[in-house]
This record gives sequence, C-alpha cells and structure tokens, in this order.
Amino acid sequence: MRQSTLFGRTLREAPADAQTPGHRLMLRAAIARPLASGLYTWLPLGFRVSQKVEQIIREEMDRIGCQEMEMPVLTPSDLWKTTGRWEALEPITFRTKDHNGREFMVSYTHEEAVHAHASAEILSYRQLPVMVYHFQSKGRDEARPRAGLLRAREFVMKDAYSFDADEAGLERSYKAQHGAYERIFTRMGLNAISVESDTGAMGGDVAHEFQVLNEAGEDRIVICSNCDYRANMEKATRAVDAPMREDGAAPRSEISTPSTTSIEALQTSLKLSAERLLKTLLLRDAAGNVVAVVLPGDRDVNEAKLRKILGTSEVKFANDADFAAAGAAPGYIGPVGLRVRTLVDTSVDERAYVAGANKKDAHLRNVVRGRDFTGETVDAHDVREGDVCPRCKTGRLRIERGVEVGNIFAYGTYYSDKMNATFLAEDGTRKPFVGGSYGIGVGRAVQTIIEMNHDDKGIIWPISVAPYQVHVIALPSNDEAVRTAADALVADLERAGVEVLYDDREETAGVKFADADLIGIPFRTTVSKRTLKADQVELKPRSASEAEMVPRATATERIVGTVRRALA
Amino acid sequence: MRQSTLFGRTLREAPADAQTPGHRLMLRAAIARPLASGLYTWLPLGFRVSQKVEQIIREEMDRIGCQEMEMPVLTPSDLWKTTGRWEALEPITFRTKDHNGREFMVSYTHEEAVHAHASAEILSYRQLPVMVYHFQSKGRDEARPRAGLLRAREFVMKDAYSFDADEAGLERSYKAQHGAYERIFTRMGLNAISVESDTGAMGGDVAHEFQVLNEAGEDRIVICSNCDYRANMEKATRAVDAPMREDGAAPRSEISTPSTTSIEALQTSLKLSAERLLKTLLLRDAAGNVVAVVLPGDRDVNEAKLRKILGTSEVKFANDADFAAAGAAPGYIGPVGLRVRTLVDTSVDERAYVAGANKKDAHLRNVVRGRDFTGETVDAHDVREGDVCPRCKTGRLRIERGVEVGNIFAYGTYYSDKMNATFLAEDGTRKPFVGGSYGIGVGRAVQTIIEMNHDDKGIIWPISVAPYQVHVIALPSNDEAVRTAADALVADLERAGVEVLYDDREETAGVKFADADLIGIPFRTTVSKRTLKADQVELKPRSASEAEMVPRATATERIVGTVRRALA
Repeated sequence: MRQSTLFGRTLREAPADAQTPGHRLMLRAAIARPLASGLYTWLPLGFRVSQKVEQIIREEMDRIGCQEMEMPVLTPSDLWKTTGRWEALEPITFRTKDHNGREFMVSYTHEEAVHAHASAEILSYRQLPVMVYHFQSKGRDEARPRAGLLRAREFVMKDAYSFDADEAGLERSYKAQHGAYERIFTRMGLNAISVESDTGAMGGDVAHEFQVLNEAGEDRIVICSNCDYRANMEKATRAVDAPMREDGAAPRSEISTPSTTSIEALQTSLKLSAERLLKTLLLRDAAGNVVAVVLPGDRDVNEAKLRKILGTSEVKFANDADFAAAGAAPGYIGPVGLRVRTLVDTSVDERAYVAGANKKDAHLRNVVRGRDFTGETVDAHDVREGDVCPRCKTGRLRIERGVEVGNIFAYGTYYSDKMNATFLAEDGTRKPFVGGSYGIGVGRAVQTIIEMNHDDKGIIWPISVAPYQVHVIALPSNDEAVRTAADALVADLERAGVEVLYDDREETAGVKFADADLIGIPFRTTVSKRTLKADQVELKPRSASEAEMVPRATATERIVGTVRRALA
Repeated sequence: MRQSTLFGRTLREAPADAQTPGHRLMLRAAIARPLASGLYTWLPLGFRVSQKVEQIIREEMDRIGCQEMEMPVLTPSDLWKTTGRWEALEPITFRTKDHNGREFMVSYTHEEAVHAHASAEILSYRQLPVMVYHFQSKGRDEARPRAGLLRAREFVMKDAYSFDADEAGLERSYKAQHGAYERIFTRMGLNAISVESDTGAMGGDVAHEFQVLNEAGEDRIVICSNCDYRANMEKATRAVDAPMREDGAAPRSEISTPSTTSIEALQTSLKLSAERLLKTLLLRDAAGNVVAVVLPGDRDVNEAKLRKILGTSEVKFANDADFAAAGAAPGYIGPVGLRVRTLVDTSVDERAYVAGANKKDAHLRNVVRGRDFTGETVDAHDVREGDVCPRCKTGRLRIERGVEVGNIFAYGTYYSDKMNATFLAEDGTRKPFVGGSYGIGVGRAVQTIIEMNHDDKGIIWPISVAPYQVHVIALPSNDEAVRTAADALVADLERAGVEVLYDDREETAGVKFADADLIGIPFRTTVSKRTLKADQVELKPRSASEAEMVPRATATERIVGTVRRALA
C-alpha cells in the first residue's frame, strides 16, 4: 500500500478531549475517527487491525466447532418483550419504529433472536450441542461514551451462543469457550485474566470476564496475593470472621448531634473512627420497593451485589415519603425501630455502634445488632485493599484497574424458560435449551492492544494484529535510484506474501520516521541514498532502539525470514 | 462440517408467502431465515455464501486500489441535513434518538459520512485520487419488503466512494469501478448487463445499473434488438420522429360525452383508437407545484422521468382545489385553455386529437397541438415493446424483467458542493471533490444467483460461491465400515483444502439425496455399503444427471482435481 494515497492522515497532536494513551494514539495514528460522539469509523489502517482481530477470534471459534452466521442489527420488540428486556434495557438502547408503527431495537445483544432461531431449527436432542456466533454491530446508548473505542455507542461484537441439552453440556460448552478466549487474547498479544463477574442484564449465575489490567480501564479487579482468586469488584467477596461480640455493652442511649448528617461529620464531632459508626441507606428498587441497608461506617455498599440480592435492575435513593413511611429522618436514619425491610451487611459486628436515632439532630450510642435491631444478613459491601481472600483465607486482596475485553455467561434456562424455547429430549419430553453467551468487542480489543503496547512515540503493534508487517521508507522518494530500489524491494516483499506499507510521500526524513514510530508497524526498512551507497538497506524493529544494516542482495530474504519468525 | 450438528434445517415446503423460485429455495435450503418482515438472519450455510460473495467483491475492489474501511450504521442527522436528505429520505428510512434527543439514521447509504471524512483526511490534490469502500448494514423501511433477500429492510451493502480532483479523474474512477463490477458479477456466475439508469435519490446525471434479466426482478429493462442500447425503463427513451402533421384539420368542436371519464370508455363510445385521444394528467410535486402533462391516450407517463424533469422527489395526483384553480374538470381535463404549467410529451403529434373539454360530460374533437394548445416539450413517457432504439435508430426495443444487482453513480460535486467538502487544488484554490458511489447488495446478489441457478429439485451453486465444494454422503452412517470410510475421505479432502459438508445424519437415502439436491453443493460423493463392496465411491456433479463410480484408492486425488479445475 502506497502511503501517498492512504486514506487517513496522522495527527501531530491528539484532540484535547482524548482520555487515555490508547485513545490519543488511536486518533493520531489514523486508526479510527469519530463521526459523532461514540460513533467511530475504522480508517483503512485500523480496519486492517480490526480484521486481524476478527480473524483470530473466528479461527478460535471455528476450532471449537462454533458455527458462524449473522443476525440483523434491527430486531423486533416482540422478541425482547418475551424476556422483559424491552423495558429493562430501555435506558441503554437505541430504538426505532417503521412507518407502520412497529418497534425495533438497534440490538444490544442477540440472546432473544438466537433463541427464536434455535426453537425453529433445533427440533431434537440429536442436533445438540450447537454453538453459533456472529460479528455484528451493537448499539449502546451510553450516557458517557468514554476513551474512544473503550466505550463506544456502536461497536462490532463477536457474540457466540451455546445450546445444550443439560447443565453438564453447558459446562462443557462454557469450558470450551473459556479455553478459546484464553487462546484468542494470547494470540492478539493481550494478557487477559479470567475473573468472576456479575451477570448483570444477562441473567444466570456463573459469569467470567476477561480483564486486561491497565489504568485506562474502568473496572476494578480484586486479586488475591496468594491464590488464583480474581473477581470483578461488582462480584468480589472477602473472608469475614464470625461477628465480633462485645458482652456487657451499656444500654443504648440518645445523644444530641445537631447538623451532623454524614459519617465524616459524626467522626469529627464524636471523635470516633468510622468503623464504630453504622451507616444506614434507605433505597428503592426498580419496582418501587423500599429497603434499608446497614453497614459499618467504613464500608461502602456495592450496588451490583445489592441489585442481585434484590433481583432488580436499578437501585436509587428513597424519597421523602419513603423516609416518612419507614419512620426515619433523612440524615439521621438508623436501624433501631425502622419500619421497613432491613438488610444487615455481613461486615456489621455484634458490638456497640453509634447509629442514627431516626429523628432529626439525634443519634444513639451502644446500638448492638441482635439486641437493638435485626435484619436479613447479606453480603452487599465493597471489598477493599488488604481484605482477606474468600478462597484461600490467607492471601490479601489488592485492587487494580482493568479493561473488560471479553465476557462469558452461563445463563442456563434463563432465556429458554421465558421464551418457551424447547427441544424434544431423549426421554420424549420437551425440555428448555440450556445456554450460555460469549462476547468480545472488537474495537475495545484493538484499543486495549494499543493501551498495552506503546511508548511515547507511538504504537508498537504485536505482529499478529499489525496493520502491515513491514514499513518501507524511501528517502527521499523523488530520488530516482532510491525510488527504483524501494519499488523493487516492496514488490519483492509483497510477492513473498509480506504486508507492506510503503512511504512514497515527498516528506522529510523527520516526518517519515515520526509517522513510522506513531503508526507502529513491527519492522521498518529504510532505503536511502546513504544506504544505497553501501549497497544496503536499514532494518529496525519498532520495539528496538537500534537499526541494523542489511546487504541489498539478501534484504528480501532476510526481512521475509524475520517476519515469518515473528509470526510463528 | 458435520451435517448432524449444522445449525439450520431444510424444509420440505416453502412458506406459502414465498414469492419467487429463489425465495422459496433460499428458505427451504436453510440459507437465511426472516426474524421479522424484511429482516433476515444468515444461517451458517448462507453465511458462507455471503462471505464468498463479499470476498469476490473485496478482491476486485482491492485490485483497482479501492481501500477498505468501515463507517458506522448509525449516522447523525446533522450530516444528512447538510444535503437535504434527512427530509428527503424520511419515507424510506429508520431513525432513532439518543437519550439526549439527538437524532440518527440507520444509514440508508454513506455519501454524507464519507464526504465528512474526506474533508478531514484529504487536504491536498496530491492525496488524490482516493477510492474507499466498506461492507455495512443498511436500513431501508420498505413499505413492501419483497421476495426474501431481493428487497429486504436490512441488508449488507458494499458501497464504494471515489474522490477525484476533476471530471476527467471521476471518469477514470467510474470506468475502473465499471470494469470491477463486470468482473465481480462474472466471477459469481451472474450474467449482469450494464444499463443506463435514473440517478434517483443519489443526485448527479450519469448512472448505470447492473441488471440480471430474470422474471423475479421488479425492474423493467429496455434492450435494443440491434445495438448495445440498454436502459432501465425509468430512464429509457426512444427515437421519436418529427411530429406527424395533419394540414387542414377541421376547427375544434365540442361533443357530449356523459359519464365518459377514462380513455377506455372514450375509445368504446367514440370508436377511436387510444392513439387518437389525448390523456392529460394534473399532478403535484413534493413542493406543491401543480403541472399538467399531456400524452397520447396510448402512452403511459413515466414517473421517474417526470420527477427528474420537475426536480422533485415525489409526484402525486392533484386535488380538487388544484383542478378548480387550473380551470379543469376531473375526468374531463384537456390541454385547451388550461390555466396551469403544461408539459407536452414528445409523443404528441401535431394532428387532430380528441381531448377533454375542461367541463363535465364534454370532450373536444380536432384538438391540434400548436393551434389549440401549447406547452413545454418534454420526454415523460414510458417506452414500449417495438419502439425504435434512440441510439441506432433502426433496432426495435424489447422489455424484460431484471434484478438490479449493482449500481454506480457519477454524481460529481453534488455532495461536496452542499457539504463544502473541498481540497487544496494544484492551482492554490480550494475545489470541491468530484465523486461517485458504487453499490452492491450482498443478500440480493446471493438470492439472484439462486434465481438464475436452480432446477425443480433445488439450488445449483456456481462453485465460486457454493457454501461447500463437496457434499459427502454416508449411507447408512451407522454402518461402521461406511462411517470409517466416509470419515477418512472427508479428512483427506479437508487436508487437501477442499470444503466439505458431511452428511453423517441417521436419515434415509431418500432424505439425504433430496437434501443434497436442495442445498445444491457442486459435487456429491456417496460412500455406501454398495460402493464399498466394489471398493469405489460415487461422484456426481449437481448439474449432471448421471453419477460415476471412482476407485477408492484414487478418489481423493480425483475429487480434489475436479474441484480445482471447476474453481479455475
């Protein structure tokens, strides 16, 4: 490819609102361009990377017997209504209507659609197991599209779906996908770790995310220092000792705490550490049910865990009427005498706490769980650095930022039950499909590769996904001898199957080398008046600081060999 | 691929509403399935065909230096508003809003988007010419989705765009694309003819459609019996002689024609052929302008040509108030004394006609153009079988049905003028890009291949796009010797790079052979107890009526050779 007519120009500076190193380099190197907020176009260089990423995914899906197909972008509302997701996904999706008033979603994902097809195509257990996948554009109306391709509003996702006759089959399919995911990320140069995750809008109980630890990520990943425990913060737990007991605590007593409505204010005025205080939150779920959650003052509630406990898609703060109905005062709420369903977090010990008195300007001392209040015990708190691992009980937990590059869900009969998607089982009865779904966002993977593989000059592509393998630079390209030699080298390399970007532009050496470093093709070969004088060309790996001189006579052979070894 | 777990089952009968042979076979052979009206899923077999069609297109685009990229499905309304197409395309498009109220189109096509990118990426004439393309899902809210994949509401289109510095450059790009299209359709086994076409919603003057002549098509293609003139009915003209004159026609006179409001009724009551009558239509354009069109009674108005003449997107019948304002009576309208802009078709001679008298129950005899009425001369009529060719003036025109499998438009500066999309020209001024666009619908191409390649048993795929090259059938597959031999043959063929569908199902010979004929893979190889007894396998091309026996020892070599020769 001649760079003089390559569509997409490099930028000296990234736009000021580019948020991460990968976002900035992706824009500067002409990988992709926004057409509107969160809507990206792959420019030719980036398109090639995306296709290599897709091809790696395709090969690994095919290897485990997953069949490629393609479902449409627009899917009809009636499908989504069978599972309740037409309503549940409203805040995050784009919808449209045809001129007859029928509604469609710019699909968020395709569980409903693929179950509809499975019902029609799979009649008998003899056709199972089946795994299918497609690459298709998804729409997500993110309120805050973020960091370029890391969180876009439209993106191509590979989503795969497994259909099995029973749970044991699902386990096999899930394991096959898990293995494929490990190979996929390794092949694209990403060190992705598998972590336990919340199932969120997908339903079911078992789910894993593949996370690449990187500061650009928005997920918080909890990792044990000792064993293999790794979980998304949304799902992570910790080893909790038996509740600490204090026998003989004094009876509870009221104290005056005017204008002291926060844990911080209370700490200051009472000179107590936050762990001696109780934090009580009054919350509403999506159906309008109100619940109180009680935690120690030094622990944060974990919304995802709480949503799961409540079986709801949304948790928000209660309103004034809810406070009145519960017998609580905003800013002074506590668990004693509360007239509402109360959840007590496992972090709450059985010792004397200070808690809100449920009346304005007052708190209670010596509030003891079991004696002064009760409630359902739940695990609804965030773990934090230094907590004890729930698996090995000895390691300490640390928390890192991660980018979720893949996720897999074993949802079982969550969709087939709701959609009455069944097959004729071996015993002659009709049984629901037992399923899972398995996603990878292509654009996010590409940008994560950049987040993980760059220096201050630009991208350093792993060769498996590089837009081209060799960048040939003619210096200057209007010198006839240089041009002739470079043309010949490019032709020879292309004949040998090497992918070449050929900088034939009339630009200075400075511009050309800076662009080469920015674009980050694994090997740079320079043909210049100086190298020709010695009958040589220069070869420099993007990741090395030094170049080496190669005789022209053996240059093609040498470069082809180098590329092949790198690809192997 | 083992057929026992292939996702997608063949159907004995097509749904009753399947409209064409290709539509019926596409559904029966499990190529695609509707998820809703006009929204199709490629099942795995069909997906493979679609990918081969895409790959042929890709190779031919790459060959002419067209660069692959990918623009999003959703594009913002502001882009479309710069060209006026946000309004103009409303009736045929899907739109959506984000939660901030910003509007997007499920893109109809990408001229606006690609011009926005070109403006940002192409600064100077030195970067020109550029051609780019992508494969992307398009939305079209067809009021009547038709015949399966021939007219769907969502479909993947390859759309390419050329950017040149001047008209001469555009001509070169257009010609390169025209040549690529010829190779593309030939390679996928379609005899597509290039015909002159209307530019419709795309703007510009020069356009060609690639039409495959087939009864399933909804276009009418006009073809000269003598020369290479071929045009879509929407654009076709004919050689029109100088107007026939009748000197000494009697003065016009009124006749009573109660309840005679149609050409047919008038013919009967006056015993005159339709060509002696004048037909006058009172019409309204999209802006509400009213116009009268006068044609001989035996000619039909051509809406597309009329829209082009009027520069409007829509023509509909005038209302009662329009008739009153024009001084006309519905059913009795004629050109004499009409108070409205009047267009007289080139088919109208200068001889005596019968025409409406512009009052109820009356017509006029001896109405002569030039003497009794005047108007702008336009070509707004449909050509018909037997008309004289406008190019060679000797051949006769015939009309056939065609499926439009591709279209190319040379719109010049139509978009760049409206969008102010300019580059720095060699003379130092800023000039608008001179462009064209070039589309092929993948699904329509696939179904057209079926419309053109089938018999009463099923599809007969050209090998270049066949889902698999060889269909191996084990009979019966639960016989151990048969199974072992078939497994080995499949493994050998796949090792040699042959694409094999392997019917390993426990079905009867009748079912297996019927499915093989329906699915239409080019070569069928049967391994049965009978063939094994003779140490042979059976080989039968789908298009042949006779099978032949091949010794097992040389079967792989023989089949591989046959496939390679067919692919060459």
